[in-house]
Amino acid sequence: MKIKEIKKITDKHHLNLFSISYLDQRDHEKSWLFASRKKVPELADKKSPAADAVVIVPFHEEQQKLVMIREFRVPLGGFQYGFPAGLVDPGETVEVAAARELKEETGLDLERVLRTSPPIYSSSGMTDESISLVFASCRGEECLEGNEPSEEISVLFLSREEAEGLLNKPDLKFDVKSWIILEHFVKTGTV
Amino acid sequence: MKIKEIKKITDKHHLNLFSISYLDQRDHEKSWLFASRKKVPELADKKSPAADAVVIVPFHEEQQKLVMIREFRVPLGGFQYGFPAGLVDPGETVEVAAARELKEETGLDLERVLRTSPPIYSSSGMTDESISLVFASCRGEECLEGNEPSEEISVLFLSREEAEGLLNKPDLKFDVKSWIILEHFVKTGTV
Repeated sequence: MKIKEIKKITDKHHLNLFSISYLDQRDHEKSWLFASRKKVPELADKKSPAADAVVIVPFHEEQQKLVMIREFRVPLGGFQYGFPAGLVDPGETVEVAAARELKEETGLDLERVLRTSPPIYSSSGMTDESISLVFASCRGEECLEGNEPSEEISVLFLSREEAEGLLNKPDLKFDVKSWIILEHFVKTGTV
Repeated sequence: MKIKEIKKITDKHHLNLFSISYLDQRDHEKSWLFASRKKVPELADKKSPAADAVVIVPFHEEQQKLVMIREFRVPLGGFQYGFPAGLVDPGETVEVAAARELKEETGLDLERVLRTSPPIYSSSGMTDESISLVFASCRGEECLEGNEPSEEISVLFLSREEAEGLLNKPDLKFDVKSWIILEHFVKTGTV
């Protein structure tokens, strides 16, 4: 496989389509369409690419509960259950972005980072988007004053039993990461 | 929040950008851009939406190993570690799609479906893409004859120790789902 050329085929602010021409294993020229938030997709030959976004998995130490949010997602036209998340600002570390987004979206304070994933890819057939997962303990009280008007968020504090109840409710929409981590939390009591 | 209108702003075969106009919580009109593989995004008011794609988490019973693939991903311009996956064909169940994709990408036979997730969302800020995770046992031998010329795949059979070694190698690219599930497998010995 060999990448030949990459072309930006839309000209929008936050998200664009790109077309890549490449040679397949038989040396036939093919093209592949994908979406990217980047001005110029890096095609990741870089050794240490930075994550586009951060997703926080917050565990409230005092309450001994996993924190999730229920949030209106415009592309789904409805509410989704997931973790606090957001784009990493230029110059920010993922840990700083995690603490900022957690505060803005839930009012909670990040206490201690437990572990961080490398940049991992959301759906690499259709986008080069990468995220870092930040597993962290947190403290404080829920407060939604930092929410944007485009965010309609409620905060959930979940014991294992409450997490199991949530997973088993029919017709809820879950983010991929939150579903897998919630299932693991129900089984093991840890994230 | 209220969705007003959805407009298709590109006209490509496999992936398009759409713009949604909506009223935010202050009744201000805003717009949101997202990518979709659908002709007409459903905005998910449907009670039981179908998953766009299936991702198989295959456990090889005889070898007692987790199966992953290393695959060239054009939008990343390089190789990514993940699970066998593919789009669900019209009329197909996710279980049938899982068995088909597993066979095509690895040569292995799906033996028994252990559990299946509901449709869960890959990255709902930028796309309405949903997948179902199919956890399954499998059998047979690796065979790459079913691969497409646009697929450059190798198959990995991982014990817990091998999975840990893979996770700890620097500079590898992982899909989100595979990273989280691999980490759980290292910790608990199960998926």
